[in-house]
Amino acid sequence: MSDLSKNRLKHLKALQTKKYRKEHGCYLVEGRKSVQELLDSDHEIRELYATEEFLHEHLTQIREKDIEAILVSPAELGKAGTLQSNNAALAVAAMKTPEVPKMAEGLILALDQMNDPGNLGAILRVADWYGLRQIICSEKTVDLYNPKVITASKGSFLRVAVTYVDLPTWLSGLDDVPVIAAAVGGESVHDFSFPKNGILVIGSEANGISAEVQALVTTTVSIPGGTYTESLNAAVATGIMLDNIHRTSK
Amino acid sequence: MSDLSKNRLKHLKALQTKKYRKEHGCYLVEGRKSVQELLDSDHEIRELYATEEFLHEHLTQIREKDIEAILVSPAELGKAGTLQSNNAALAVAAMKTPEVPKMAEGLILALDQMNDPGNLGAILRVADWYGLRQIICSEKTVDLYNPKVITASKGSFLRVAVTYVDLPTWLSGLDDVPVIAAAVGGESVHDFSFPKNGILVIGSEANGISAEVQALVTTTVSIPGGTYTESLNAAVATGIMLDNIHRTSK
Repeated sequence: MSDLSKNRLKHLKALQTKKYRKEHGCYLVEGRKSVQELLDSDHEIRELYATEEFLHEHLTQIREKDIEAILVSPAELGKAGTLQSNNAALAVAAMKTPEVPKMAEGLILALDQMNDPGNLGAILRVADWYGLRQIICSEKTVDLYNPKVITASKGSFLRVAVTYVDLPTWLSGLDDVPVIAAAVGGESVHDFSFPKNGILVIGSEANGISAEVQALVTTTVSIPGGTYTESLNAAVATGIMLDNIHRTSK
Repeated sequence: MSDLSKNRLKHLKALQTKKYRKEHGCYLVEGRKSVQELLDSDHEIRELYATEEFLHEHLTQIREKDIEAILVSPAELGKAGTLQSNNAALAVAAMKTPEVPKMAEGLILALDQMNDPGNLGAILRVADWYGLRQIICSEKTVDLYNPKVITASKGSFLRVAVTYVDLPTWLSGLDDVPVIAAAVGGESVHDFSFPKNGILVIGSEANGISAEVQALVTTTVSIPGGTYTESLNAAVATGIMLDNIHRTSK
């Protein structure tokens, strides 16, 4: 086992910045479970750094996919990546660019100005849980390929397509599709009948839903409660909305 | 405005460690909204570091409560605290030690081995949203006074009491109280009638519910979904459980 070269380390570190990721069209996937799911998916793996144990366990897949795999120690994974501890693997995966959906078929989640990477990751996970396959994000939303988003999504980034658009323009281009916002002062989510096709807009905790998007909202739906505190964590609120949609559409 | 002394900075930095917090019985509260809510509460403030604007806005409260307030710049707040940006205030608050509840009155949330500070903060917030006033944590759960927990709770740490106990022992000592676990393979939370008094146990994402606690569970309740992914973020799962309890207890 040789030490990772300075150039390799520099390249992996640079993948923590959005600019470098965009230039190279790739991003980091870290930790046993995420890299395992990446190997199981049809996403392209450009580089794989893994411990002997991980390489041994996944030898067949690595050979079948003809992946260049580099043996490293857990200490080297620690140096190369962003996780506090990683005794398994780190991969560099190629970005996929999903098409911007023109029509709302089924339920599409739209995130307006979501800043927190942990929240975006948790939202990907809960969208995946309920079988959603598409999330539209405003341009100000945190980058999907931020390592914290990828890690927090626990593999769901492989199944849920995320597209960044100018949200007001995209919403304006939809024909007759209900745009439902999760916000205070609307109809209770417990009683609301969600339409089969529609957009569910979730705003950021800090800034809520922007005025331009708000102008395009057709219905506001609220989560009952909140006597003592003003707001819920954005991922928690998304989960509660989606659970109610799932319950009432049975 | 004088620079913060080396000793003050050292003390504030040390409050990021659990050991020092325990020895001194105090913890950090950071950012405009959290410190505002702290000032509005009956919690004791031992030290306050704030910008001129924040001091000016809260002059009456600071005088009434006879708090020693030290004028600092946003740059100094950045150096002293854990937030990426803080242009308002940082307080050192005295810990409260809530009594360990002997009986389950109403619904008590029990967290088993919850490791992630952001999740504990988001859980405090959603508990507060639904009016819960008590969370019991297993000893392995992350410390409430970790600055990340306090910040993520957005002020809810002031209203929800958190107690650390040996969870199996505490549960064993309760008389005839239903112990309901959120886990896979149980009755759907959409159809389940929650009892008026009971314990809702949420396990960690990494380790689930420990075997000792599992042995004391009387009912398992599940969140429908999850065809594609195995699990939800723990705070999201807690939110969905509590929303269903709120809905069915109306």
